[in-house]
Amino acid sequence: MDRPYIAVIGAGDATATQQATAEAVGRAVAEAGAVLVCGGLGGVMEAACRGARQAGGTTVGILPGSDRAEANPYVDVAVATGLGEARNVLVVRGADAVVAVGGGLGTLSEIALALRAGTPVIGLDTWDLARPGAPVDGLVPVDGPAEAVALALASAAARRQSGRD
Amino acid sequence: MDRPYIAVIGAGDATATQQATAEAVGRAVAEAGAVLVCGGLGGVMEAACRGARQAGGTTVGILPGSDRAEANPYVDVAVATGLGEARNVLVVRGADAVVAVGGGLGTLSEIALALRAGTPVIGLDTWDLARPGAPVDGLVPVDGPAEAVALALASAAARRQSGRD
Amino acid sequence: MDRPYIAVIGAGDATATQQATAEAVGRAVAEAGAVLVCGGLGGVMEAACRGARQAGGTTVGILPGSDRAEANPYVDVAVATGLGEARNVLVVRGADAVVAVGGGLGTLSEIALALRAGTPVIGLDTWDLARPGAPVDGLVPVDGPAEAVALALASAAARRQSGRD
Amino acid sequence: MDRPYIAVIGAGDATATQQATAEAVGRAVAEAGAVLVCGGLGGVMEAACRGARQAGGTTVGILPGSDRAEANPYVDVAVATGLGEARNVLVVRGADAVVAVGGGLGTLSEIALALRAGTPVIGLDTWDLARPGAPVDGLVPVDGPAEAVALALASAAARRQSGRD
Repeated sequence: MDRPYIAVIGAGDATATQQATAEAVGRAVAEAGAVLVCGGLGGVMEAACRGARQAGGTTVGILPGSDRAEANPYVDVAVATGLGEARNVLVVRGADAVVAVGGGLGTLSEIALALRAGTPVIGLDTWDLARPGAPVDGLVPVDGPAEAVALALASAAARRQSGRD
Repeated sequence: MDRPYIAVIGAGDATATQQATAEAVGRAVAEAGAVLVCGGLGGVMEAACRGARQAGGTTVGILPGSDRAEANPYVDVAVATGLGEARNVLVVRGADAVVAVGGGLGTLSEIALALRAGTPVIGLDTWDLARPGAPVDGLVPVDGPAEAVALALASAAARRQSGRD
Repeated sequence: MDRPYIAVIGAGDATATQQATAEAVGRAVAEAGAVLVCGGLGGVMEAACRGARQAGGTTVGILPGSDRAEANPYVDVAVATGLGEARNVLVVRGADAVVAVGGGLGTLSEIALALRAGTPVIGLDTWDLARPGAPVDGLVPVDGPAEAVALALASAAARRQSGRD
Repeated sequence: MDRPYIAVIGAGDATATQQATAEAVGRAVAEAGAVLVCGGLGGVMEAACRGARQAGGTTVGILPGSDRAEANPYVDVAVATGLGEARNVLVVRGADAVVAVGGGLGTLSEIALALRAGTPVIGLDTWDLARPGAPVDGLVPVDGPAEAVALALASAAARRQSGRD
């Protein structure tokens, strides 16, 4: 129970560059001994799981449908929720920090839900958010996978520490 | 069952201007004979319900908690979901079109979930979204409540028509 | 907000007798000025809504799917949850008391979830529950619709009163 | 992805006998190479996880709250849903078969939801269900943990096979 949980979010239809980024993120998450949580499907999710498994990590897929067989082949533990897009809430709710790769609308909903819950989000080639009258705290754009995971883990550690104080 | 359902989304802590806007939106929704759906709490949600009730409309509040008493006093039908922020999915899922007023993070999650489901979103003083490589379709900024509701109703009618064809 | 909410639960494929019972329950709920909440589909749900509408009442249908058009024609306010059977939780969560007609498995899950939340359940021709070592409190079998609704309303009033004290 | 998933359900406040039974069930699930899914809390859930971990198995806890720290210490992968009792749906939805130990009301809701989804339920000292007019298929009472798990695995294998045909 003491391992950090890092959610990696991103679209099911991702570019080759985004998939390579996600795979590197997954590998770094696993190398740090953290659990990788994702939406369990293809694209960014599959690439992240593949990277994590290559490094011997644990991968969790929170699926929108009711059939575990929808999970990509690199998911260790599949949770078939049957909740549709409401499962996005679960992907980020249980994570200590989130890494977003690329820019789908499902990803945007997960970024918003994470920030709303006070969970830090590290962004790689993702949404640029602007709203009238108030800055957006908690979404930090970075340039590469290693930096993203290092920052996610540091944020997770700081949050877990402050939760204990 | 033939009335359109319009979701009005916005933060619980809203400025006086946003609340005045939301109240005008709610009134226009009711005057058009549409059902107003919202998150059932204060701020933009309460103002929109108040406006709708003044015009004799029906208001539905989809609450995050388990206690119906959390609903604002202008909610006709309160649904106490106990789902927390996962109730955001329900606020937009059942609507034919969405009007967003102002820019909270919960609102952003609802905008993203609506666009993801193909539901049109009309924005009043709300998020400006940008992502790498692809435009954001479906989020239409307008200048005033009357225009917002007219556009929401036209979008809703077009969607319902195409659903029947 | 001061009207009691009574959930009427029962199977989509119900006998003619169960439907007649449900219709009488719906009518009595409406005549008492209470809001009728149900799962929004056919069988017991449709019959209860029809009875309530004949008496001028308000009916709410909490649907498992994402399409409002699945609601039976006597539903005033349809909530398309897209949550599948998880919507059963919502049907009973927001009610002050529950009337169960007949004995489907979805109905059994709703009875259990209601009792678990401390919500009284009045049963008409429904499940007979027995478990080892402890009695089942809160499930009260009665003989007819009028008695069922009277008892549901009295239980709801007692609960609401104790919630205020 | 080829391991069967067996849900073990039962109350958080369980007798010593029920906990010993659940521990034996968990051990047998792990020895068979299956993933153990449960609600992640104490009592039957904790005993089943403890048994599974002693045999080197994988345990998944689907929690009602938003805080992973609520999981019992024998949970490998904790999913903090924040959905309250709606998480019961998730506990059984993703399982190939269910073993019920003892007789709480949450357990009863899970039995009903599993049977409703066509998932076989093996019962150890659990609810005795009776309804008017139709037998209850799918709930099989057995006498001991070994028999329960053997039957759960056989049912799971039969279901998975028929799903492939």
